[in-house]
Amino acid sequence: MISAHPSNHILSLSTPRPVIDEDVMAANIARVQAYMDAHGLAFRPHIKTHKIIAVAEAQRMAGAAGINCQKVSEAEVFAAAGFEDILITYNILGAEKLERLAALNRRIRALKVTADSAIAIEELARRFSPERPLAVLVECDTGGGRCGVQTPQQAAALARQIAGSGGLRFGGLMTYPKPRSAAAVEAWLSQAAALCAREGLACPIVSNGGTPSLFEAHLVPSATEHRAGTYVYNDRAMVRAGHCALADCAMHILATVVSRPTAERAVIDAGSKALTSDLLGFADFGHVIEYPDAAITGLSEEHGVLDLSRCMDARPTIGETIRIVPNHTCVVSNLFDEMVFHRGGVVTRVEKVAARGMVW
Amino acid sequence: MISAHPSNHILSLSTPRPVIDEDVMAANIARVQAYMDAHGLAFRPHIKTHKIIAVAEAQRMAGAAGINCQKVSEAEVFAAAGFEDILITYNILGAEKLERLAALNRRIRALKVTADSAIAIEELARRFSPERPLAVLVECDTGGGRCGVQTPQQAAALARQIAGSGGLRFGGLMTYPKPRSAAAVEAWLSQAAALCAREGLACPIVSNGGTPSLFEAHLVPSATEHRAGTYVYNDRAMVRAGHCALADCAMHILATVVSRPTAERAVIDAGSKALTSDLLGFADFGHVIEYPDAAITGLSEEHGVLDLSRCMDARPTIGETIRIVPNHTCVVSNLFDEMVFHRGGVVTRVEKVAARGMVW
Repeated sequence: MISAHPSNHILSLSTPRPVIDEDVMAANIARVQAYMDAHGLAFRPHIKTHKIIAVAEAQRMAGAAGINCQKVSEAEVFAAAGFEDILITYNILGAEKLERLAALNRRIRALKVTADSAIAIEELARRFSPERPLAVLVECDTGGGRCGVQTPQQAAALARQIAGSGGLRFGGLMTYPKPRSAAAVEAWLSQAAALCAREGLACPIVSNGGTPSLFEAHLVPSATEHRAGTYVYNDRAMVRAGHCALADCAMHILATVVSRPTAERAVIDAGSKALTSDLLGFADFGHVIEYPDAAITGLSEEHGVLDLSRCMDARPTIGETIRIVPNHTCVVSNLFDEMVFHRGGVVTRVEKVAARGMVW
Repeated sequence: MISAHPSNHILSLSTPRPVIDEDVMAANIARVQAYMDAHGLAFRPHIKTHKIIAVAEAQRMAGAAGINCQKVSEAEVFAAAGFEDILITYNILGAEKLERLAALNRRIRALKVTADSAIAIEELARRFSPERPLAVLVECDTGGGRCGVQTPQQAAALARQIAGSGGLRFGGLMTYPKPRSAAAVEAWLSQAAALCAREGLACPIVSNGGTPSLFEAHLVPSATEHRAGTYVYNDRAMVRAGHCALADCAMHILATVVSRPTAERAVIDAGSKALTSDLLGFADFGHVIEYPDAAITGLSEEHGVLDLSRCMDARPTIGETIRIVPNHTCVVSNLFDEMVFHRGGVVTRVEKVAARGMVW
């Protein structure tokens, strides 16, 4: 059990701990940026997946046009690090958030938010003035079933409201679509843009998003940009979606086998505090690289229970370290203060997860 | 939308944010301690639920005999705050953790860990010496199906191994049972204790645990102590288990309605980064106090989607704050750096969640 690995090897780290393969991440960044460049789409990475300044800088170096955040507090972290083009894809409501948003808008060049209701736009309009207007995009529900106006007509009406508010500028349209819905998204957005144009309102940005069907982004020609987060690390859900192969998953969670109560059961030290309980439709909580037939059938906070009954060859032993590809990588980032990067198992750097816990 | 509440009211806080009702928490602490006192059981609160020094101090003031942690890093946080009797209910493996465990054992009076395998005991034995021995309890799987030896005979064998290791002391037995299994747990533990006694090994501690059937702890007379975490705040799962009423849930998550895309859909700013994706067998992700017929049917990191189709009376409006009783309170604590406490809505204090993120 004395580690056979030098102290700068990831297998010498205390577990559970996520680690990021530098080369896989770099290839993910390059591949997606090349696709966007080839199709003339601006690319706006969503920082939610990594929440790390240096990773956003790598995305920018590769050619990203700006970044996407979900919270004012996240945007503040990246603005402090020099990011000037930030789209917050969220209805910002509440006195404190609106004040911080206004302060941020005075500080950076190209802050933008979204809104999907007259109330949200009124609240924004009250806090911004023509000397330093805020760009507001209308969020459109093109089938994703979360936020967003329901029809192109409603989108145009909100565009008119924004354009008519002294302190706001109409920034265009934004959607977070259902995967594999390119044709429907295109029909929706092109109609909304046409209705806006009829009112004399151009859409500077039409922002489409999502990793699962990212490589279909060119099938939405109305879009001027695409947003994606997960692509940078990838995860089991992206493999299932056909976006990537298992070898393209840059994040592994290292876990130690702490108990082997029965021949068919192992317990690891990665529970919901490391893997999260996101199932995303899977039957278990992650893919074990070394034992692909093992199923992580149960999680409590500090324990993961593995069913080994389908492992016909080797089975893990107490003290062994295993690597897990998580179902959902973004939520794992939010659980750790630091992220370890490595190349071939040798630690290259430890980055602060700067926007971890930026929840409001 | 300008807040009608004074700045020290919880409804003036930015959301999403969990808040703790002081009076409900105090009643939960008192009720459980009174039960344990009445039955002559030592009580050892599990700090995982709150991870807050001041709350552990309140539990100690009420009469708790010590605390329960799951990780060495958690125990270090509480040891630094003056807690001397700490049971870590975990197999401690790995060089760094064992070194830190040894340092901690030199520092506090009554550190104890559990083990469920010969390997784990060997690893411990290698790091501890008779001058400053470590107490080790044998973890028993009495039906919970997580860690633990499978038979009383195995428990006695490990007890013998511990007692025969110069640097270790046999501390007794520990189990994390399935709820409502008092008779089976008693049969298991009493047989294991008898087998240990036959070898001349007394069990200083027999530690039973869990909140769901906490008020059946007296039905396990072999136990000398009980461990529980969730009881301090309670949650929707504890209401379902019959442990408490909805009014005994001290934690509410405040969330703002940020979108009302359709008549039957609301979107709130509490997603999996605030509520976690723990379903624990429920069909949705929490209980909305103000709209008990609303179902939180979907979560992404920053969005919660509410199905309002069964809300026959009022439905929430944009900007409104709602309160959610989470399915599982412990996992929420791990997502926030600070916890706000209040009495009747007026903030009483803000405590650091000192052991948040202590994952290894």
